[in-house]
Amino acid sequence: MNHRGELHRKNLHTVFYPRSVAVIGTNKVRGSVPGDIFVNILQSGFQGIIYPVSPREKSIGGLKAYKYVIDIPDEVDLGVIVFPSSVCKLALEQCGQKGIKSVIIISAGFREVGEKGLAKEKELLEIAEQYGISFIGPNCLGVINTDPISRLNASFARKYPAEGNIAFLSQSGALCTAVLDYARAKNIGFSKFVSFGNKADISEIELLYYLMDDPKTKVILLYLEEISDGPGLMRAARDVIMKSHKPVLILKSGRTEEGASAAASHTGSLAGKDEICDAAFKQAGIIRCEDIEEMFNIAIAFVYQPYPEWKRVAIVTNAGGPGVLTTDAVVKEGLELARFSEKTTLSLKKSLPTTANIKNPVDVIGDARADRYVAAISAVFKDENVAGVFVILTPQSMTDIDSIAKEIARVADQFDKPVYTSFMGEADVASGIKILERNNIPHYILPESMCKPFHTVYNFNRFIHNEEPEVFVSGHPPNLVAKELLEKAIEENRKYLNEYDASLVLEAYRLPVVEKRMATSAGEAGKLAAEMGFPVVLKVISDDVFHKFDVGGVVLNISSETEAEESFRTITESVKEKMPGAKIRGVQVSKQIQNGVEVILGIKKDPSFGSVIMFGFGGIFVEIFRDVSFRVAPVGKSTALQMIREIKSSELLSGVRGTQLRDVDAIAEAIVKLSFLAIDCPQIKELDINPLIVLEEGRGCYVADAKIILEN
Amino acid sequence: MNHRGELHRKNLHTVFYPRSVAVIGTNKVRGSVPGDIFVNILQSGFQGIIYPVSPREKSIGGLKAYKYVIDIPDEVDLGVIVFPSSVCKLALEQCGQKGIKSVIIISAGFREVGEKGLAKEKELLEIAEQYGISFIGPNCLGVINTDPISRLNASFARKYPAEGNIAFLSQSGALCTAVLDYARAKNIGFSKFVSFGNKADISEIELLYYLMDDPKTKVILLYLEEISDGPGLMRAARDVIMKSHKPVLILKSGRTEEGASAAASHTGSLAGKDEICDAAFKQAGIIRCEDIEEMFNIAIAFVYQPYPEWKRVAIVTNAGGPGVLTTDAVVKEGLELARFSEKTTLSLKKSLPTTANIKNPVDVIGDARADRYVAAISAVFKDENVAGVFVILTPQSMTDIDSIAKEIARVADQFDKPVYTSFMGEADVASGIKILERNNIPHYILPESMCKPFHTVYNFNRFIHNEEPEVFVSGHPPNLVAKELLEKAIEENRKYLNEYDASLVLEAYRLPVVEKRMATSAGEAGKLAAEMGFPVVLKVISDDVFHKFDVGGVVLNISSETEAEESFRTITESVKEKMPGAKIRGVQVSKQIQNGVEVILGIKKDPSFGSVIMFGFGGIFVEIFRDVSFRVAPVGKSTALQMIREIKSSELLSGVRGTQLRDVDAIAEAIVKLSFLAIDCPQIKELDINPLIVLEEGRGCYVADAKIILEN
Repeated sequence: MNHRGELHRKNLHTVFYPRSVAVIGTNKVRGSVPGDIFVNILQSGFQGIIYPVSPREKSIGGLKAYKYVIDIPDEVDLGVIVFPSSVCKLALEQCGQKGIKSVIIISAGFREVGEKGLAKEKELLEIAEQYGISFIGPNCLGVINTDPISRLNASFARKYPAEGNIAFLSQSGALCTAVLDYARAKNIGFSKFVSFGNKADISEIELLYYLMDDPKTKVILLYLEEISDGPGLMRAARDVIMKSHKPVLILKSGRTEEGASAAASHTGSLAGKDEICDAAFKQAGIIRCEDIEEMFNIAIAFVYQPYPEWKRVAIVTNAGGPGVLTTDAVVKEGLELARFSEKTTLSLKKSLPTTANIKNPVDVIGDARADRYVAAISAVFKDENVAGVFVILTPQSMTDIDSIAKEIARVADQFDKPVYTSFMGEADVASGIKILERNNIPHYILPESMCKPFHTVYNFNRFIHNEEPEVFVSGHPPNLVAKELLEKAIEENRKYLNEYDASLVLEAYRLPVVEKRMATSAGEAGKLAAEMGFPVVLKVISDDVFHKFDVGGVVLNISSETEAEESFRTITESVKEKMPGAKIRGVQVSKQIQNGVEVILGIKKDPSFGSVIMFGFGGIFVEIFRDVSFRVAPVGKSTALQMIREIKSSELLSGVRGTQLRDVDAIAEAIVKLSFLAIDCPQIKELDINPLIVLEEGRGCYVADAKIILEN
Repeated sequence: MNHRGELHRKNLHTVFYPRSVAVIGTNKVRGSVPGDIFVNILQSGFQGIIYPVSPREKSIGGLKAYKYVIDIPDEVDLGVIVFPSSVCKLALEQCGQKGIKSVIIISAGFREVGEKGLAKEKELLEIAEQYGISFIGPNCLGVINTDPISRLNASFARKYPAEGNIAFLSQSGALCTAVLDYARAKNIGFSKFVSFGNKADISEIELLYYLMDDPKTKVILLYLEEISDGPGLMRAARDVIMKSHKPVLILKSGRTEEGASAAASHTGSLAGKDEICDAAFKQAGIIRCEDIEEMFNIAIAFVYQPYPEWKRVAIVTNAGGPGVLTTDAVVKEGLELARFSEKTTLSLKKSLPTTANIKNPVDVIGDARADRYVAAISAVFKDENVAGVFVILTPQSMTDIDSIAKEIARVADQFDKPVYTSFMGEADVASGIKILERNNIPHYILPESMCKPFHTVYNFNRFIHNEEPEVFVSGHPPNLVAKELLEKAIEENRKYLNEYDASLVLEAYRLPVVEKRMATSAGEAGKLAAEMGFPVVLKVISDDVFHKFDVGGVVLNISSETEAEESFRTITESVKEKMPGAKIRGVQVSKQIQNGVEVILGIKKDPSFGSVIMFGFGGIFVEIFRDVSFRVAPVGKSTALQMIREIKSSELLSGVRGTQLRDVDAIAEAIVKLSFLAIDCPQIKELDINPLIVLEEGRGCYVADAKIILEN
């Protein structure tokens, strides 16, 4: 974190816990943003002192108003600016003069309205830097802190949320209003609630670091529209997750914005913005959510219940149909139904009627009342095979819904395993659901929705306990040979490096490039080939030829000296004919690797996350099935191995189904080296190693062709 | 439909519209099933006459009670039996004596409790057949008809639903109670509501046919746990869909029940129960739903709004974030954002503030009130590029939620295009949502949830207007050669047919099998090969060898007479050595087809749907990616072409990305022929054609290897 980051961290605490707040630019108009914010702070039960600042009013809401913030006689911790954008600069400057270090700028009319607004935003930042101010916004809904020692609602949200352990951060203000309403109806409480708008100064990264140490926050939810500093976000999230063990859930919109753009390399065409975002989040341990509902479904599982230690669940239901539907969902999600021990089976048999189903899913039958639920839940909770319990209820005529809800809470309290519930229906079960919610028992409208949260919490639990610390720096000095080659090419205004030069760059990073030499005459080609040993491959070397195959610039399977000489001539003649202008530097003679399978490695530079590494299987299937994996560089060996295992076609390397076991370790090492090249050399826009030929286990792999597209 | 089917159709009308009902086995106990059902019929406002039948009571609820149904002096249309299972037989018999043709058996204790119950169920069926009775159940919740001329609630559900145009049929009674509660809270009405339990007599098939002609029903929803007559269900659904244009939505549980079982063929291992169900539903035009929520999300789109004619939607929102999230969902679902005409753009520019976004998604901005929504919605509705409108609202301080809801309904009424809505949040937007629901405007909690219903309705609309009528019978006499071969093998107790015999079966159905002859000596092999023309393939013919390759029973690429002779010896020696007991009938000499790509065709018999045809790409990728397609036999040519196009790797046949255009038409014809073989010969349990070698367009395809597993 840079020095401004450190500053934000300190000033952020004052944003949430100010002893005094000045609402700068407020007025008496209810229903207006400047007026509502003042009322919200006043009515939320704020534990400090409030100073309205208004150029026109003498008093607001019974409090003495000041013309300027500098007129306030006492010390002020937090400034909340609600002036129109034209006056914000002045207001912020006066905050600086007053010694205020923490500011929330609610006002809109900045970056979001275009160039002029962006200029105004930059002015704000300059002032902030000058005075050592940290600010949230502009163009935001504001900040809420439900901690009883603060009780700050410095926002124009309609609702003050209940106290809880979920922090919600959002780039969109409008989404916040919907979330507050949604959460209130579901009895979900918040620790901190932040709309950070244009994030001109304080971004989600500083907020994450702040929340890492916030004792009131157990789970962090983040809605993002754009990621400006991908690696920074990854690092912050990873720190929060690994150091404080708080899960970070992100809903990222703009998934489909970019679409498939024309790209010069395989990697370029396969690495969409969203696939990269997925990979980066996975790498950092971030949980990516599909929508708001899923986000809260998962969040309540985290905050309300213990984490499951393994994947086997027990289902207790009073209706067969929903039991079957949930079983389907359990299997589909990759969870398992627990098989009960003999003791559990006996206990269930004893306490349930003979018509009940005592196997998992346990069906306590439609006329079950609370006692039967208690017996079943207690029995399965005690079972050593059960990691957690899903309780389903349908409102039948005998069902004593509220009692069952109370009993679930009571029984669950005795065990250190999670219980999730689904009381199906709506009006009839409403009061039962309220009881569950008040007792911190996660409730889901659909029983199927219990599976994803369970699995997510389970995976997170494994992640924080098993994951090795990730290397986020390369840890060795950049290789100068590669750097020089790339810089020279850029100076010469080249758009890409041909295979010969690309190989030199790769060799500099000790990637296993096949042995290759340059021949400038047919005779030399023959001689080099003979020295090398057959079969060999001949390929044209020219800075003007990008697609060598298309101009007859490649001959494979050459098995004699004469053939090599002939091929030299065929190649040079063909290229001259098909690309008369192309300058031929020579013909490359290289070993032809036999009995290997072909995979692809690549680099792509992403505007949010920087250099990204791709791995996939060779050939046409990679394009049809998009069966590739990505990681943000640098990549350590264990991550590289994950990348390889993650794709479906990695089976083809594993020695099953009649295939041979391939040197997966060698591929992983190549990925690691490539990733260091990627971070050391930002001159590389895209890179394809296609193919990397992989031999049997222990026999290595070879770069058989490569191209580099330059950032030029 | 058989004669019992015809009978059901007539008797079913009386189930829903009886002039008089006898509740047989009722009592005075509230909270008991027999007691509650009587009260429900009485209190629902039933338009006919009710007769309580009780062995013990003189009167129930003020009505005179009869000891036996035969004691009732008047005619009785419908009998509702609520006796314990032990007395049901007698009660049904008396119904028969009384001349009652329509019966609902609520009582449990039949098939669902095991063998003894199943026997009792069979007795009921015998009596029903004897007296020409049709009955629903046993083990069900009952039947509801909301039609004002009947108003029948012959069920023990807690709720009488609102009148509407959705019919709901369910195999699970418990799910019904949850659905009724859910629907009531969402203002969803029903036409008919049927819990059909064990479907011992009347099944979903007869119910579908009945609802086809029910003027009150516009959409049919069906929850199924098991499919006993797959082809019957497909035929019924298809009839309903194509003749009455009513959509059929099915939630089928038990998706993951079976798991991957050991199978002898490729087709066997790839064709899971659930994949087959998916394929069969698609073939019949049935819409398969993931869960109850999705089912109703789609149903309300069908009943409340016009069908979209194309796929381009307009989004109108007062918040950017949800607009972006919905745009993501639109693209992900395969829909498109409409591009507005110049006229629309001008109109939006005129009526919205300058800060609004007038491109799609239209952002009317947080402080928008109803007038701005009206202007935006009207403008985009009028646009010729827009097929439907998604309206999103977040509750901000200025938002006049109820007025906006009313205005959406008013404006939408003027256009023959669908509008769907999502008012985000919960408590604040509740009254607005009620207004939408009362005005038949579909409302979705998440804005993303608007996409799937829109797409589903669009697809259904295309299906009913473009789909050719499907052939459901083979239309030609079965081939006797194939039949004889299969029956002979079964008589001989063989488990499978070797390639040679399997080829004869395929040839009988005019599938293009490569030219092949049997040689019984090396000399003969050489001669046959020379006559045929090289290259040829030699393979052992033996009923004892299932995996020819594993015992050295195959030699490929034979290019001379001597080589053929040698190969004959190699094969026979190798097989003798590796399988000393195997009886070798000879060695098959066949043409080796060159320059083809390999695909797989197969047959598998499914317990629910009968013979199913599989198509997939050859090689290891078919197994890794499970990139295969299925259809229930028989399959017409257009369906066969769909099967081919449906898999991702079909690109490899299309001549793109450097591949050659292949004879897709020939594959389709092979699929059609194979499907006729499948329905004519139920002796085939599994069949693999692997590979079918496909040449360039116009040059055909060839069965290069095949095996048949017998139903033995």
